[in-house]
Amino acid sequence: MKRKVYFVSDHTGLTVEAIGRALLSQFPDFEFQTHLVPFVDDIAKVRELVGRIATEEPPPLVFSSLVDGELRAVLSGSGVPSFDFFETYTTPLEQALGIHSAPRLGKHHGIGDPGSYQNRMHAVHFAVDNDDGAVTRHYGESDLILVGVSRSGKTPTCLYLGLQYGVRAANYPLTDDDFERDNAGEELPQALRPYRDKLFGLRIEPAQLQRIRSERRPDSRYASLEQCQREIAFSDALFRRFAVPVLDVTAMSIEEIAARLVQRLRKPQM
Amino acid sequence: MKRKVYFVSDHTGLTVEAIGRALLSQFPDFEFQTHLVPFVDDIAKVRELVGRIATEEPPPLVFSSLVDGELRAVLSGSGVPSFDFFETYTTPLEQALGIHSAPRLGKHHGIGDPGSYQNRMHAVHFAVDNDDGAVTRHYGESDLILVGVSRSGKTPTCLYLGLQYGVRAANYPLTDDDFERDNAGEELPQALRPYRDKLFGLRIEPAQLQRIRSERRPDSRYASLEQCQREIAFSDALFRRFAVPVLDVTAMSIEEIAARLVQRLRKPQM
Repeated sequence: MKRKVYFVSDHTGLTVEAIGRALLSQFPDFEFQTHLVPFVDDIAKVRELVGRIATEEPPPLVFSSLVDGELRAVLSGSGVPSFDFFETYTTPLEQALGIHSAPRLGKHHGIGDPGSYQNRMHAVHFAVDNDDGAVTRHYGESDLILVGVSRSGKTPTCLYLGLQYGVRAANYPLTDDDFERDNAGEELPQALRPYRDKLFGLRIEPAQLQRIRSERRPDSRYASLEQCQREIAFSDALFRRFAVPVLDVTAMSIEEIAARLVQRLRKPQM
Repeated sequence: MKRKVYFVSDHTGLTVEAIGRALLSQFPDFEFQTHLVPFVDDIAKVRELVGRIATEEPPPLVFSSLVDGELRAVLSGSGVPSFDFFETYTTPLEQALGIHSAPRLGKHHGIGDPGSYQNRMHAVHFAVDNDDGAVTRHYGESDLILVGVSRSGKTPTCLYLGLQYGVRAANYPLTDDDFERDNAGEELPQALRPYRDKLFGLRIEPAQLQRIRSERRPDSRYASLEQCQREIAFSDALFRRFAVPVLDVTAMSIEEIAARLVQRLRKPQM
């Protein structure tokens, strides 16, 4: 079964798309064709959209977040099944808070609090500047340092930690240099030793690592199962020896990895 | 007026926090103290939470996205005003689609479609590898190339384009080398010439640029208003001369910049 779905927003549409997809994932038998329609912020744009989709068969679903009640009315009057978050929740929220709402366009996913926004931007630049172990002298300023083998997800996770949470994350790759030293596994890499309490290890099942690496360099030693097994065995042993907290990220998206790390940062006992 | 707010999720909580903040932004007279409570995925965790917050005065607000109806029942039975997106929308969605839902935990913000997830990860690595003009030989593989002066938002925007949209974005900084050449402003920088149809310019009001740069290097020539004015005048002229589409990002968050760019990529006429 197929069904078209429109995510309609007066702003970026990020939020309405996320919640819409979460709701749709409860209907796995449907094949949804989704369309994001952002920046629908005046009557003409809503009318244009409605004119385009109102006659589609079967009727599409619309998830929307339109702050302006007039725009919502055009959509809900069109006969297309639509679900608007402001429409749904504003009245019960007014009741819970005992006050009327003051609708304002595009307040979410805007710059919002400038201090916290600038903090997130600084954290993104920090992640870029301290990626991949090339520069280690700023580790003292980091909130955490991710350690793991190549393609275990360190770089995207660090960037996401900055973007979403304003967390300053550096990352250090475990490479052949670390594995092939005489005393390999008996010592932490030099650059990490002063920062043991900031370290988090990422580990990943060798077969999954092989799949990821194979996309990058097919049929290479780097992507071979043997090499992946060897590197993961080494990093597992290192993390165990130095009691580095480890997250197994084999089945995790970077959003999940980041959320888990932030949770651990805030509750060290977990 | 102050009020505590909890964003409760059986997963990362990113979605419920985003929609909750959007709804709360309609009540600007309140000062909300927000708490994210992710990974509440069994009865014991919901009970622990409810035990902790049910006696707070005034009663806190709870926004939640709990797929499991049993967990939701513990929360809604607690007397705390709560708004759960699955609770609200599942029944009307079932009606619109004519089918029962099949609740599954943690399907959103997971890896989801592995192909599209890997594509996003590749795009993130592409952004990191092609940041700041250091490497220009992969420009042919990019979806777009952002051009602008230092701290106009190029780097975070490129990373976000990769993370959120899987768009491969490179960026090229306009620097003193470009401004001070003999024929400055008469030619595009060499590396950009073959890719004129991929270029997007970011511009920013000089006063705002000065504020951002001052946080990084206070009282420097780099952060002086004169320097910022000079660089923006130059980049404005360059964009005009070579008909580079320009986005004024002075009041935009990177989420907004990225959404606007993706909209333009998909509808070249806008």
